[in-house]
Amino acid sequence: MIGKLNHVAIAVPDLEAACITYRDALGASLSQRQELPEHGVTVVFIDLGNTKVELLEPLGENSPIAQFLERNPTGGMHHICYEVPDIRSARDRLLAEGARVLGDGEPKIGAHGKPVLFLHPKDFCGTLVELEEV
Amino acid sequence: MIGKLNHVAIAVPDLEAACITYRDALGASLSQRQELPEHGVTVVFIDLGNTKVELLEPLGENSPIAQFLERNPTGGMHHICYEVPDIRSARDRLLAEGARVLGDGEPKIGAHGKPVLFLHPKDFCGTLVELEEV
Repeated sequence: MIGKLNHVAIAVPDLEAACITYRDALGASLSQRQELPEHGVTVVFIDLGNTKVELLEPLGENSPIAQFLERNPTGGMHHICYEVPDIRSARDRLLAEGARVLGDGEPKIGAHGKPVLFLHPKDFCGTLVELEEV
Repeated sequence: MIGKLNHVAIAVPDLEAACITYRDALGASLSQRQELPEHGVTVVFIDLGNTKVELLEPLGENSPIAQFLERNPTGGMHHICYEVPDIRSARDRLLAEGARVLGDGEPKIGAHGKPVLFLHPKDFCGTLVELEEV
């Protein structure tokens, strides 16, 4: 069912500092900053050739990564995103397997303009999993 | 400097249960289990087409992931591995930038038979970074 690894998201308290680390120390290729107020984050993409890392900084009130950064003040890996060809059939299979889909179970439009769902970390080895339909 | 994302490692308390989750719920393609006593882990690789996830279970005394699992008993993303063309020149650049290389600074032979180094999470957005020469 799952296909490619679409991205790994790393939540950071200071996006500018994280960009300097990735650009200067690791020599990575970075995108421009993008504010995504509807997702409560500012994001920079790191293009790794085969996949990407997304650096996420909280934006506005009630950012979905604010609590994570309270628990992990220096930042950390926040979620991993796998591609699926059909997100509703993926969801139905997961529900049949007893996995928990976060929210109301209906796909939302994610940061890349594609339908996404998030799965409960306790059902997936302590890892928050995003599925993105591509 | 950094090239492709080689893998994301997820530490798990129960590798068999993790394999069932990834195979049955997520429909992933799994390798056979490999015991790597010199690295203190048993590993299963998940081939995602563009990169891989490594599921790691502690093996033997003093496993390098034992403490992580004490702090994260259901498991979690343990490290991210980026490929570099020349690990010693990568290390020298990182040291010049003020980053901390774990251990004695000399590359070791990693789980794939290639030279690897680990970088201090506090210097990299709270994320343990492995560099692998490919």
